[in-house]
This record gives sequence, C-alpha cells and structure tokens, in this order.
Amino acid sequence: MADNSVPSFKASDLVIQLSSTLKAKSDVFTFGTVFTDHMLTIEWSATEGWQAPLIQPFGNLSLNPACSSLHYGIQLFEGLKAYRGDDNRLRLFRPMLNMNRMANSAKRACLPAFDQSELLECIRRLVEIDQDWVPQSDSASVYIRPTFISTEPTLGVKKPAQALLYVILCPVGAYFNTGGKGLSLWADPKYTRAWKGGTGDCKMGGNYGCSLSAQYDAVDYGCQQVLWLYGEDHQITEAGTMNIFLHWINEDGDEELATPPLDGIILPGVTRQSILELTREWDEFKVTERYLTMSQLCCALKQQRVKELFGSGTACMICPIEDIVYQGENLHIPCQEENSQLTSRIAKELTDIQYGRTPSDWTFLV
Amino acid sequence: MADNSVPSFKASDLVIQLSSTLKAKSDVFTFGTVFTDHMLTIEWSATEGWQAPLIQPFGNLSLNPACSSLHYGIQLFEGLKAYRGDDNRLRLFRPMLNMNRMANSAKRACLPAFDQSELLECIRRLVEIDQDWVPQSDSASVYIRPTFISTEPTLGVKKPAQALLYVILCPVGAYFNTGGKGLSLWADPKYTRAWKGGTGDCKMGGNYGCSLSAQYDAVDYGCQQVLWLYGEDHQITEAGTMNIFLHWINEDGDEELATPPLDGIILPGVTRQSILELTREWDEFKVTERYLTMSQLCCALKQQRVKELFGSGTACMICPIEDIVYQGENLHIPCQEENSQLTSRIAKELTDIQYGRTPSDWTFLV
Repeated sequence: MADNSVPSFKASDLVIQLSSTLKAKSDVFTFGTVFTDHMLTIEWSATEGWQAPLIQPFGNLSLNPACSSLHYGIQLFEGLKAYRGDDNRLRLFRPMLNMNRMANSAKRACLPAFDQSELLECIRRLVEIDQDWVPQSDSASVYIRPTFISTEPTLGVKKPAQALLYVILCPVGAYFNTGGKGLSLWADPKYTRAWKGGTGDCKMGGNYGCSLSAQYDAVDYGCQQVLWLYGEDHQITEAGTMNIFLHWINEDGDEELATPPLDGIILPGVTRQSILELTREWDEFKVTERYLTMSQLCCALKQQRVKELFGSGTACMICPIEDIVYQGENLHIPCQEENSQLTSRIAKELTDIQYGRTPSDWTFLV
Repeated sequence: MADNSVPSFKASDLVIQLSSTLKAKSDVFTFGTVFTDHMLTIEWSATEGWQAPLIQPFGNLSLNPACSSLHYGIQLFEGLKAYRGDDNRLRLFRPMLNMNRMANSAKRACLPAFDQSELLECIRRLVEIDQDWVPQSDSASVYIRPTFISTEPTLGVKKPAQALLYVILCPVGAYFNTGGKGLSLWADPKYTRAWKGGTGDCKMGGNYGCSLSAQYDAVDYGCQQVLWLYGEDHQITEAGTMNIFLHWINEDGDEELATPPLDGIILPGVTRQSILELTREWDEFKVTERYLTMSQLCCALKQQRVKELFGSGTACMICPIEDIVYQGENLHIPCQEENSQLTSRIAKELTDIQYGRTPSDWTFLV
C-alpha cells in the first residue's frame, strides 16, 4: 500500500528502455562481478523532487567529479536476492525489511525519503525484465543491489540537493569459497567497525571503507575475515560483513542461541532477524539478544560449552566459524555431531522458504 | 626529489589536453560550487600500474554503477589552496603535508601508493594552467581538491584493483558566512565523529557522510556547526570540519594554547600544525597538545579563565567560536579586548606567509 504522506516516485510512472542486445550468460560467477542487462535509475533534486523511475540498459553513470558521494561518503546500499523456486517462480525474501532499512539509512545520510512500496514494485519490474538471469539452482540466485548516492556537484559539506537512487542486479553463487570448512576470524581490538553515535546500524558506505584495512590484516594473520570487537571488555559484535550468533550452554547452564543486541553498533540484518524469529518459533532453547565478550567465549570454550558459532547475512546466508585468532592464540570452535548442527537446520529452513518449498508470508512473488 | 622506491606516475609523463573554450570568471563564489577549466586525472590498475597523468577539460567522470567508491566509501580527499601574492606570484602553503596525509589516507583505504613529489608537480602544472582563476585578493584563493577513489567495478568488499586519482580546482572566498561574528556550536554526545580504531585521523569520505545528520541537528538547535565530543567525559575533539584550539588560563594558572592530541580520532590538520609551530616559536605562553573536556571548559568559563576558542582548517583558516549549546545551556565565550586577540594575530601571520609578504620555507611557488 502506498504511503501518500511521503513525496515519492511512482512505479506506475516507470519508463522502460530495453537493451537492444543481451549479454551471454555463463554459469560460474565470482560474487558481484557480472551484471544483468538492465538497471533501474531514479533521479531526485530538491527543486524538482523525484523524477519518473527508469529501467534502462546497464551502463556507466556520468558523475560530476565534485559530487559529494565521491568526497563525503554520502551513499548507502542494500542487498537482497531473487531466488528461482522448484516451481520456476521467482521470489524475494522479506524485501520490505530491506526497503525499511534503506529508508533509515537514507535519513541518517541526509538523503531524501521515498515510498518503500513503490521502490519494491520498481525492483520487482526490473527483476521480471531480467528474469532469465536467475539461475535454477539452490546454491545460486540473483543479488539485488539498491544504491542511493548524493549527486550534489559542490564541495561544501552539506545536505545533498541532488541524488540518484539506482538498482543493479548480479547473478551470484556462494559468497565465501572455504571449501566446505568453517571461516577463520582475526579478532584484534586495534580496529573498530562501528561505535555508539556512528552509523554502524545503517548500510552506509563509510562503514565498509574503514573496514577494508582490517580485512587485509586478517589475511596477513592467516584468517579470512575480521571478528569485530568493541570496548574495553572486547565485546563480540560482527564477523566480517555478517551478524554473529553463538549457540552454547550459557553461564547459567541453559542452552542458548545468542546474538548481540541492536544497540546502534550492530547492523539489523534481515537474516539475523529471521533466525531469531525462526528459532523463537521452535521454542527449543533460549534465544537471546545479549552482549557477548571474548572472555565469556574463551571461558565457554575451555569448559566445552560452545556448540556452534556462525555468521549470518544475505550474501552468505549462514556461515559456520571454525577458528578465531585472538591475542596470539588460535581458538578452535569444535565441530559438533552432525545431528545437532544448528546451522544446517536453519539454512535448510530458510532455503526451503526462499526457494518456495515451504509456503511462507516471508516470500514475495516477483 | 622523487622517491623511486614507490611505483608511481611521473609528472614528466603528463599529457595535456587544453579546453577549447574557457569559462567566464565571476567574483562571487559559494564555497566549492564553481570549478576551473581543467582537471588532473591519473588512472591506476593492479595489472597495469599507474598510467600517465592527464590534464584535461573539467568534465564528468564515467563510473561503473558497481564501483566500490560508490558502495563502500573507498575514497579520500585533500584540501589545500593556491594564493596570489601581492607580487602576483602564486603560492601553495606547505603542500607536502597534504601529500603526506593523502598517502596515509590511501594506505588506510587500501588504495595504492604514489610518489608524493610527483603528484605535487602535477598539481603545480594544473594550477599553472588555470592560474587566471586565482583571484588577487587577501580573502580569496583557489581551493585545490585532490581526490582518490576506487573504480573497482565489482561488489565484493575487497581491496580495489582499479582506482582514479583526480584533482579539481575551485575559486573560493570565505567558507563560513557568519557576518563577522564567531561561530555557534552544538555539543551533544548523541553523535560521535570518530573513534579509536576508526578513520578519524584520515580524510576518508565516510568521516563526513556520517557527520551530516549531526550538522542538521545543530542547525535545528540554532547553531552553525557541531562541537564533536568523545567518551564518557565529553572530551572536546573537533568543531565541524575543523580542529579546535582553546586559549585560556589553565588549571595551574598558566596561560596556555591547547588543542587535542593526535591520538587517532583527530585529523592532523595542516593549519593545526602550523599554529602549533608558529606559537611555539613565539614562546610567549604554553602551547600544549592535551585532552580538554567539557567540564574543564565550563569550569574555566565560570572562573573567567577562557581567553579565546577557535577552529582551524584550510577552508576557513581560523574561525573564532562565540557560543556553545551544551546540555540545554548556552555557553558564551566572552569577547576579549582587541589587542590580545590571538586569532587575529595568527591569521595575520599565516596570511602574510600565504600571500608572500613574509618570506617562509612554508611557501611553495607555483
């Protein structure tokens, strides 16, 4: 239902310019390297408001070299996927959660508001047009990247008076190539991903640019990703670009699935929220949003109370964590018996919803 | 002297494509809205290395919509100025400090290294070509904006394999339009500009995008800029996009000029460094890099120990601060007698160097 209180573009105004030539599709993709034939662009200016949305051939943007998305990081993005089900229908997974988060990021970045349902409908049309790109495979999908940048062509640090919202699509397989093993993480308080009063709870570009250097330090230490710590007590916050979950027997002897609370420094992940809702629905163990510190994790590992540690996110879905390098030590997260593996069970339930094998109101048909 | 240990572009390889038409020059400029006729662009790729630097007509950049400067804030910039002296010669002010800081930012952003002297020589040539844009005025100059962005056209969060370094120029007058009054600042711990383990000591885009929202809260509270606080004890860190200086009688009864130390969350400003060096040279009062908290400032204001508070930066040079809104109160910084005004004296000494009235090894002739 359209929210008429926000001045917005309308999907009914969509202008569609189809590409005269279509690209050849191949099967093997490194994440985010191949794009489909079309993209969605929607221009905004303070004087003219939102223009009609346009679906046009994928191609370069022409940007003023002074534009403040390139100087002051006035930019944000989203990530969601389109899945081809066994029934050959295309589905998105809880896309309004992405639209809501995008609106929150836009507010934080001083970019203009828009009607979230109208954007979703424009995205649906784009996916429909490039539907042949969505693979018939449980391990592949089309990744949808809504992006929102300032195109204000002046150097004063100020609220943009011009902006561009655009959406590009890329067929993707698995995000990490770990050869079936769990991830290894490097945990060092030297770098901080996000901080109270910052933008860690929004998908703004600056959160990622500042994390890159740590990522390469992690690789130098023989790890694949960073385990982001926070504060004097080395709180566990996120893993790489994922939320993090600990399945353990907690200090009180209770079986618990725990993830850090949304206190401003944690990205409110769609997969995170879905895992919380799914496992709370099961009602088989405690499911908690709580602070977790490295000393709590180390203690639990010594006492063999850790069952599983994993990351979650749209790009990777669920990713088990096998090792953490922390203060010169390698903390190994023990493998658990096959039948108790929580990650496999969650991954199956989510995949069954995404690919249409389990009916769910979390799916949105394209 | 060229540093041959770093693979770099060379100024001697410069290719120059002059614009066939020149823009009309006008006298009144809002900061960063009007650009000169030419720009410098230098492309880099992991496979080909640095390409020949190119001076070409100012114009739009053509960027892949997936490029990681637009998604992950992999971008940084610098700011320096070219001044036209009374002798009609053009001068830059300590430009190697900017080149060094740019190299540091590039390292933090995982962008490639370059020879700083070669970049300075390319910039010198660009300013020389657009020299007619540099106004003959003590209150105007040409602002030089070196910018360095990732042009990696893929969505994985990783070190860019393609990048673009470019420099644009704009004639500028005063940065703030305060009508001769001091700035008013809004101090609220709700927002944090930078944090330990982050990028506050680099000129990366993300530092600015995340500050914009606070800036508009400041305006809502009737202030012009944000006074950035840090930590439980509300340390004073920066003011808007400026470093901050307090001239006061300190707790020990000593006259002191104080500014926060470079502990990772403070931008190492060129004007900041120059003010420290200049006033240490005078040897008339203590000049200290130290922590300053809001409670120390409030106490000093009550006891009438505050002589002056001001911001410093390349865009504004020196900017007196007159009011701070903090915890619901308006803290007024008293005006001081004309003959003790430190800001005027520092501004005059720096301006005399920048415009060539005082010979100095801080100037670099174009």
